[in-house]
Amino acid sequence: MLAGGAYPAMLALGMLQAAPAHAFNLTGSGKGKKIIILGGGLAGMTCAYELNKLGYNCTVLEARERAGGRCWSVKNGSVNTETDKPTVTARFDEGQYFNAGPSRIPHNHQLTMHYCRELGIPLQVYNNVNEGSYYFAEGKGPLSNKKIRVREVHNDIRGYMTELLAKSIDHGSLDTGLSKEDSEKVIEYLMAEGGLDPDRLYKASARRGYIENPGAGDKPGKIADPHKLAELIQSGLMDPDFYNVAEYTYELQMTMFQAIGGMDQIAKALQKKIDPNLKLGAEVTNITNIDNGVKVTYKDAQGEHMIEGDICICTIPLPVLSNISNNFSGDVSRAIDYISYIQTGKIGLQFKRRFWEEDEHIYGGITHTNNDLTQVFYPSYDYMGKKGILLGYYNFNEKAQRTGELSYADREKLALQKGRLIHPQYDAEFESSFSVSWHKTKYNLGGWAVYSSETRKTQYPVLLKPDKQVYFAGEHLTYLNAWMAGAFESARSVVTAIHGRVTEQRVQYPATTTKG
Amino acid sequence: MLAGGAYPAMLALGMLQAAPAHAFNLTGSGKGKKIIILGGGLAGMTCAYELNKLGYNCTVLEARERAGGRCWSVKNGSVNTETDKPTVTARFDEGQYFNAGPSRIPHNHQLTMHYCRELGIPLQVYNNVNEGSYYFAEGKGPLSNKKIRVREVHNDIRGYMTELLAKSIDHGSLDTGLSKEDSEKVIEYLMAEGGLDPDRLYKASARRGYIENPGAGDKPGKIADPHKLAELIQSGLMDPDFYNVAEYTYELQMTMFQAIGGMDQIAKALQKKIDPNLKLGAEVTNITNIDNGVKVTYKDAQGEHMIEGDICICTIPLPVLSNISNNFSGDVSRAIDYISYIQTGKIGLQFKRRFWEEDEHIYGGITHTNNDLTQVFYPSYDYMGKKGILLGYYNFNEKAQRTGELSYADREKLALQKGRLIHPQYDAEFESSFSVSWHKTKYNLGGWAVYSSETRKTQYPVLLKPDKQVYFAGEHLTYLNAWMAGAFESARSVVTAIHGRVTEQRVQYPATTTKG
Repeated sequence: MLAGGAYPAMLALGMLQAAPAHAFNLTGSGKGKKIIILGGGLAGMTCAYELNKLGYNCTVLEARERAGGRCWSVKNGSVNTETDKPTVTARFDEGQYFNAGPSRIPHNHQLTMHYCRELGIPLQVYNNVNEGSYYFAEGKGPLSNKKIRVREVHNDIRGYMTELLAKSIDHGSLDTGLSKEDSEKVIEYLMAEGGLDPDRLYKASARRGYIENPGAGDKPGKIADPHKLAELIQSGLMDPDFYNVAEYTYELQMTMFQAIGGMDQIAKALQKKIDPNLKLGAEVTNITNIDNGVKVTYKDAQGEHMIEGDICICTIPLPVLSNISNNFSGDVSRAIDYISYIQTGKIGLQFKRRFWEEDEHIYGGITHTNNDLTQVFYPSYDYMGKKGILLGYYNFNEKAQRTGELSYADREKLALQKGRLIHPQYDAEFESSFSVSWHKTKYNLGGWAVYSSETRKTQYPVLLKPDKQVYFAGEHLTYLNAWMAGAFESARSVVTAIHGRVTEQRVQYPATTTKG
Repeated sequence: MLAGGAYPAMLALGMLQAAPAHAFNLTGSGKGKKIIILGGGLAGMTCAYELNKLGYNCTVLEARERAGGRCWSVKNGSVNTETDKPTVTARFDEGQYFNAGPSRIPHNHQLTMHYCRELGIPLQVYNNVNEGSYYFAEGKGPLSNKKIRVREVHNDIRGYMTELLAKSIDHGSLDTGLSKEDSEKVIEYLMAEGGLDPDRLYKASARRGYIENPGAGDKPGKIADPHKLAELIQSGLMDPDFYNVAEYTYELQMTMFQAIGGMDQIAKALQKKIDPNLKLGAEVTNITNIDNGVKVTYKDAQGEHMIEGDICICTIPLPVLSNISNNFSGDVSRAIDYISYIQTGKIGLQFKRRFWEEDEHIYGGITHTNNDLTQVFYPSYDYMGKKGILLGYYNFNEKAQRTGELSYADREKLALQKGRLIHPQYDAEFESSFSVSWHKTKYNLGGWAVYSSETRKTQYPVLLKPDKQVYFAGEHLTYLNAWMAGAFESARSVVTAIHGRVTEQRVQYPATTTKG
């Protein structure tokens, strides 16, 4: 029954695949070399965690009173400070949280999965795909201000597009480059894919949902007419910036995960591993390369301190680093200034009742809007629980800039005002909110690095090399911007480079940048 | 900011939606009327559970030594008996299980969700959609015997189809019935949907995955060329019976759930509620309508017994009921004989190691094949755990008939032989198996009712009415065949009918069928 020759070959393939992609087997000792790590986010803590294993002596300086950086779950008592606002404290019920930073782990981010496994962090599915959530086009076209289930939009569009293509192939007017037999197979595929009728027309189907559910006895279920194609187009529901092609993105494809209890469980597990190395509340004020070493000044509640080390790893986000005095080369300083960061914000809204589940049968997933909310996220934990926290908006760029400018109270007002257009239950059920604008948050001043093809080519490579004894690390020094995997990959990359330098006994790394 | 008039209307809509779809507020008392319920599956137990609330006196006769029927999670020590085979016992590790019957709860099956809520059964996401699992075409076409990630197939096909349609619309040869402006919007949509390049051609993208993952430093990631359209067609990967349009089916759309710890938690919770009413090991041998009542004979370990009741609810699967002596009308007997059931089977394979996760980064979801396995399911629980149980096959109809004919040992052999073509790790990691062919399983003799348009029209309505004092219930008497929701909906339907009859003091239901 086996296709003879193929099997041993596939077995061999299987054996190759079994080699763990996350292997990180550095040998040799760090001989107690002193490494100063700036920033106690995932990148910085992972550096310390891996360097400790190799026998280095690490000190991690973290400006905040908590470690983790953007890997942060907002819970009751969480605090945040935005540059133009007073420090605020979250008031949520016990057990309720939202992830202000990364909230999704792609199954294909092997290093993130590896650290979750190694650190013993239990995961649960992050339900990124939900055909039961909504599209909502405010004030646009014939379907304006109607909440439309994702399944209606998806299946109507699929129906119309496959109908059009089947028609085109049928008429023979289109050169498909396929044999007649293959073309017939494509037609067959289109009919199944679009749910077309025997005449190859799209006339709605149960895939788009029922207006009367099927049940027992004489209840076969009733389906509604589809939305018209022109209506979908004119309300913008097929616009690329609104239509949810995000689900196709490699990193957003199911299976997705989240850490049970909040993504900060990852940060907390790392923190536990490196706790003796970590100084919280230590804000870096100066980074200076000295002969064969580095000198770092920081201030904490006790005042200003200076420490020296053999090597420094700087994971401080570039917009923050830009304002810290240093003696970096001109090229490095320029790169720090030129690489841009996204503006982005989220608001968590706690509700008395999970009305999206109880009334509307929405369990996890995302509602997409064309207004400043951009997206509403339903929680992927505590299904059928009593209360819940929605992400009332998660926006970027201009939309995030606008909401970022608002006061906390006005952000809440915006989230409720726009949100109740979709969920009128907001009025009766709302309890409390907490919003974060990352580009306004002290010690971040941005969501994540965003490269143009220009800055990727000119500025990015500059920071991949150390400036004398200072190495740079973080998601911004990877092709995995915005992802926790970026922090992990970058940490490993820098640890490998440092360990190579130390074990090869090169006293000083050959500087390839010149002082500007 | 609100579109004036729309808001109050939407609020009203929201209020309407807030009316729970699962309300079941029957009033009046059953006055201790004696109801004999045949079959302790979900339908029978739900009838007893709801009738108890109304003051009826229920007896549930269940032939097996366990309740739940097809709602059954196979764990260590589970036993099954197929008609032509000895009773077998499952040998799995503690904590390991597979759901031999229903394994998925659609979020839109409101009554199933309602009972999970009411019975306090914690749910977790059943990960039905996974772009990281495989398509595998054995011995067919240019892609024969290659395991291909779902994401490659999905995105390549989407790319080619959108390219063809964009070309067709571009050339103006296709009458879309759209304005020029709307047509341009469609082209824009197609480019985003398919990931086309600026020339509107599909040339692969990161959506289909990487051959070298992106990472830190100078690792932007590498992508492979797409599969050729003709290759995909000729290997059958676009065949409707192989291509996974199942994800579009209303009931199979995410969000899907499973009961934590096994779907049998639902059966067990119901059993706890009706325990005093339940007789296990009680095999019904005769059902006889008598004046104003019903007489049921059953045998158990002690011998044969006869009980009488006012009303009987028969949830016994029709292929089993067909062999139980009775005095039903000719029409009813004919319907019982004529309504057909699907042949279907599953095998659970316990492995020492979750190689599909560790080596291949597959977390939940389904691999589709064109061979007798049909599907391989990866478990949606205990991610990153030590061991795991795969569903080695889940097949239907002719394929299920063939595997059903095999001995348990030969089914295991088939599952391993075909399975290792996809996962060569099977050889080193396999521990034990347990297979179930529902159409061969004593007290079931079928997977679920399958209606033709003919039997739906002629036979189905016959069993919706009681035969004198005997009512029929189960998934087979709904439009939700195969789903637990069918059992729940049918139970409620019959409870409503019976309670109407009893509270309206109608001594005998007007018989609409004549004795044959």
